[in-house]
Amino acid sequence: MTNNEKSLMMHEQWKGKLETVSKAPVKSREDLSIAYTPGVAEPCRAIAQDREAAYIYTMKANTVAVVSDGSAVLGLGNIGPHAALPVMEGKAVLFKEFGGVNAVPICLDTQDVEEIIKAVTWLAPAYGGINLEDISAPRCFEIEERLKAALDIPVFHDDQHGTAIVVLAGIINALKVTGKKKEDCLVVVNGAGSAGVAITKLLLTYGFSRITMCDKSGILSKNTQGLNWMQQKMVQVTNLEGRTGSLADAMKGADIFVGVSAPGIVTPQMVASMNKDSILFAMANPVPEIMPDAARAAGARVVGTGRSDFPNQVNNVLVFPGIFKGALEGRLTQITDEMKLAAAEAVAGLVPPQERSEENILPEAFRPEVARAVADAVKACAAGKGKA
Amino acid sequence: MTNNEKSLMMHEQWKGKLETVSKAPVKSREDLSIAYTPGVAEPCRAIAQDREAAYIYTMKANTVAVVSDGSAVLGLGNIGPHAALPVMEGKAVLFKEFGGVNAVPICLDTQDVEEIIKAVTWLAPAYGGINLEDISAPRCFEIEERLKAALDIPVFHDDQHGTAIVVLAGIINALKVTGKKKEDCLVVVNGAGSAGVAITKLLLTYGFSRITMCDKSGILSKNTQGLNWMQQKMVQVTNLEGRTGSLADAMKGADIFVGVSAPGIVTPQMVASMNKDSILFAMANPVPEIMPDAARAAGARVVGTGRSDFPNQVNNVLVFPGIFKGALEGRLTQITDEMKLAAAEAVAGLVPPQERSEENILPEAFRPEVARAVADAVKACAAGKGKA
Repeated sequence: MTNNEKSLMMHEQWKGKLETVSKAPVKSREDLSIAYTPGVAEPCRAIAQDREAAYIYTMKANTVAVVSDGSAVLGLGNIGPHAALPVMEGKAVLFKEFGGVNAVPICLDTQDVEEIIKAVTWLAPAYGGINLEDISAPRCFEIEERLKAALDIPVFHDDQHGTAIVVLAGIINALKVTGKKKEDCLVVVNGAGSAGVAITKLLLTYGFSRITMCDKSGILSKNTQGLNWMQQKMVQVTNLEGRTGSLADAMKGADIFVGVSAPGIVTPQMVASMNKDSILFAMANPVPEIMPDAARAAGARVVGTGRSDFPNQVNNVLVFPGIFKGALEGRLTQITDEMKLAAAEAVAGLVPPQERSEENILPEAFRPEVARAVADAVKACAAGKGKA
Repeated sequence: MTNNEKSLMMHEQWKGKLETVSKAPVKSREDLSIAYTPGVAEPCRAIAQDREAAYIYTMKANTVAVVSDGSAVLGLGNIGPHAALPVMEGKAVLFKEFGGVNAVPICLDTQDVEEIIKAVTWLAPAYGGINLEDISAPRCFEIEERLKAALDIPVFHDDQHGTAIVVLAGIINALKVTGKKKEDCLVVVNGAGSAGVAITKLLLTYGFSRITMCDKSGILSKNTQGLNWMQQKMVQVTNLEGRTGSLADAMKGADIFVGVSAPGIVTPQMVASMNKDSILFAMANPVPEIMPDAARAAGARVVGTGRSDFPNQVNNVLVFPGIFKGALEGRLTQITDEMKLAAAEAVAGLVPPQERSEENILPEAFRPEVARAVADAVKACAAGKGKA
């Protein structure tokens, strides 16, 4: 049986990977009078007086909504909200299993930006945070920005920031392994969608200054035609040298390549043209931009992929459960850039110096201390800077 | 410690009465490849091809959304969506504990009818049914009707129909106890909000023909001023005799009184003015329209209340878990009037003839067979009539 066949069989058996379970007993009339009427009126009154009391008396304290419109689901593209549900359920499962955070899948039957913003704004009261998921670029940027402004709970688009944080964590350790310094590195980010933009922004925030973004048409510059509004913003702060040309041109002399693009588009020649001790994150799924063995043979020193069957797996599950765990525990209203940097440092720090190597720049996803470490880093950052 | 104090303490201890739990193991990379990427793409593809496959592979098969805008919460009134959350969580707990149905609380931060309809339409894909809750009249009528027309999943406003079904179940048995016939009965329904309107409609559907609706101003007739659009519809099919006057006038010679109104507004004199062997449902909460002992002393034969500490408790939990359990198991797209009647008969039938008495017209809420019986009745009704 193939993995796909087994997945279909198991999904049929589960009939839903997620269930709702009561923490309150309702086995007797007295139970019911505490958990439901008439007793339930008392926490209602408390919240009516002070909305903050919801964090004491309700699931809002530890529950996020996983919201998608199904417009950019995995590698499947725009399959719509109904077909996106297995992924959102899976994400909700990961929130609980890895972070101890309850999560509710919300699949929105609209792909209109204004309507999505309205829908999320209206359904927010029961939840302590909003995890946006699998919403296509550039719509995702506007949706996230406006929801962050509209809501008093954290809003986090995992495809953007979860990916960016894990990539940065891997790069932090790869710099140590290779002895490179961020100030000196030329970075190429290939793919200018949600992940590529967020990775570039976070690397800039971290202190990289020389980043070239590419997409299917090659290097993005101020002269590139057909850029969306976010890409137009990005070419103001990247490729300051004004390079033009193909991906192959971009990679010449680069120190770091980050691919969130398409299978097999990086050749050994391109890798060989990079600087010594080059670092590659080839994260196209399931087939990377270049296979790790080919990249290593062509001279790359550190190679990460999105796959669990190669070393250095870049897996968002290292980040999003802990990010929301920390945000909820700390009653944070925003996930700031500083918190994202702190989360990346925390993930990187989970690889002890003596174990750090070309093939070990990121912690194993199943280590139970990962979410706790990320959550603590986010809370410590918030405490240090004052509540966001 | 009072019940209210205990409730507050327990809610603080629970920090949410509801949690989400995984049915799928994610303890290894292989687990993850089945429940999440890359395996999860397979059920996604199946649903993208045929939306119906969501009922095979996802939680939609057995999950309802409990949706409120917080405009009419318990006896607390319009306390808003944030303060309504403890009730919606409690409702979700009851769905699972009594019916085995997963439920997700959705508290909408808008009280605009058009916006509520949009919000629920947009968030529907992940759920197999919509339970509307604690939405004020007459807005609830339009919201429910339009959502039923817009969605391909069942929409059910429990404050209306759950209440109406339990009341009808109690009346079915009360008629048997008293030997009254529905054709002969004069019924008074006091309270012309969501529950009062739905009870009246269902009693008419069941075959009662002489119903007088009352509200604070007394008997509702075609000449009554200030009726909302639903009440204007109701006076076309009730009070065909064109009575006018007070509640006391309405109750003279009546066989059945159904109160969904206010504490203590029925006097012993009013009960004494009713027909022999009168039946009273005094469901104001927590203090009924008249206390059962006073009603019995004044001549009532059967008295029900909303309270668990008196006989004949009218409790919606007898109905809504089973209604949705049946609708989900049977893949029904609507809860029809016929299904409501079938549910009422099923609830009434759970009191065996030899146990039926003035003080035993409704089954105990905690009997585990209740939801199963209601679900089976709803499915059998649907099967007999063809899918709704």
